[in-house]
Amino acid sequence: MVLELYLDLLSQPCRAVYIFAKKNGIPFQLRTVELLKGQHYTDSFAQVNPLKKVPALKDGDFILAESVAILLYLSRKYKAPDHWYPQDLQARARVDEYLSWQHTSLRSCCTRAMWQKMMFPVFLGHTVPPETLTSTLAELDRCLQLLEDKFLRDQPFLTGPHISVADLVAITELMHPVSAGCRVFESRPKLAAWRQRVEAAVGEDLFQEAHAVVLKAKDMPPLDPTLKETFKHSLKSLLQ
Amino acid sequence: MVLELYLDLLSQPCRAVYIFAKKNGIPFQLRTVELLKGQHYTDSFAQVNPLKKVPALKDGDFILAESVAILLYLSRKYKAPDHWYPQDLQARARVDEYLSWQHTSLRSCCTRAMWQKMMFPVFLGHTVPPETLTSTLAELDRCLQLLEDKFLRDQPFLTGPHISVADLVAITELMHPVSAGCRVFESRPKLAAWRQRVEAAVGEDLFQEAHAVVLKAKDMPPLDPTLKETFKHSLKSLLQ
Repeated sequence: MVLELYLDLLSQPCRAVYIFAKKNGIPFQLRTVELLKGQHYTDSFAQVNPLKKVPALKDGDFILAESVAILLYLSRKYKAPDHWYPQDLQARARVDEYLSWQHTSLRSCCTRAMWQKMMFPVFLGHTVPPETLTSTLAELDRCLQLLEDKFLRDQPFLTGPHISVADLVAITELMHPVSAGCRVFESRPKLAAWRQRVEAAVGEDLFQEAHAVVLKAKDMPPLDPTLKETFKHSLKSLLQ
Repeated sequence: MVLELYLDLLSQPCRAVYIFAKKNGIPFQLRTVELLKGQHYTDSFAQVNPLKKVPALKDGDFILAESVAILLYLSRKYKAPDHWYPQDLQARARVDEYLSWQHTSLRSCCTRAMWQKMMFPVFLGHTVPPETLTSTLAELDRCLQLLEDKFLRDQPFLTGPHISVADLVAITELMHPVSAGCRVFESRPKLAAWRQRVEAAVGEDLFQEAHAVVLKAKDMPPLDPTLKETFKHSLKSLLQ
């Protein structure tokens, strides 16, 4: 039975999983779950993932949520090249450290920056208070500084000399505010050079393919008004 | 050179690391970093961990932040019994799934519940708007329900038949609102039985030792007023 991946490439962690699977030649059936149509909130998807989130993986009877867990599962099961999640004790710890850190830092502020700058005005027709956006962009800036100072430093990739799953998780995150017109890389030459290295290592075509949806998000039609209630709770947290 | 662990047992992830190291007989030098005195914001601690957070590990020249990365590093380096972080592909993925999920769920609402219910009024002399606390406690309740329904289910431990690092990360988290008087276990017999199993597996003495500081937090003296500015940013996020 072929592996199934439940994804929406509008979501950053879904893009990381998609790129990893494609790049490593892992055969999978793509099950698209359209977030903006609220398909992750349906009862049928709750059967797959009670957390009602994408990505999710189905491998026979085994169902797994959480992108970090999925990336590590795929790297182990399909014996991906060592650099993605190195066996070496300290090198692996560096990847774990990044994967852990990003949940409460870049993950949150990249999502909020993208929604506040683009999705609220374009997709929802809501104006975001300027002070909220200013505060979010300042937080994003602090996170980017930590990404450079603590993780990238003077290395080619975030956790060492080779690309790892940490770089995929980070680049897919940063492309979120980029899609909304945030100037993430313009004043950060080290981070811009890292982005070029990640794109080259992934391959330009695959990188573009994975980001096509989010880079066109500004042109999407407004939210179906009947879905506003469905999204109420998650939208509230995106305005903080 | 002996391993150094920078901890404050007032912090949930520090307690998880402390219990894991003690339970597995890992020799370490405890370096206490007093969070409520702002010691994690000092320049000398930023030399150890530029993220200015505890726990942090120093193993010779190798410095590691993030509790999840530290737990996995210790389990690998000291070859802890398999059940803590199982080799089996699917069993390990279950642990990774929990470790990933908790960052943006229990981690956040247990901290806010404890601060809003106890630390703001007792330690800071601030009144928290009742609707803020009500909303946080409702979120905590939703997280606890997911913890039961998605993770614990009818298993002895969160990720299977044996205790894993996921259980340590979870129990230390839940003891945070417990210390503030939240009735986390009272109406949840399955979760209460799980708590008993975790305490028995860890050992009653070690469990009490690790939680002594937080269970006495309600008796601590108020914050030194000269430190209010230092804590301003982090306190703001705890009121959401």
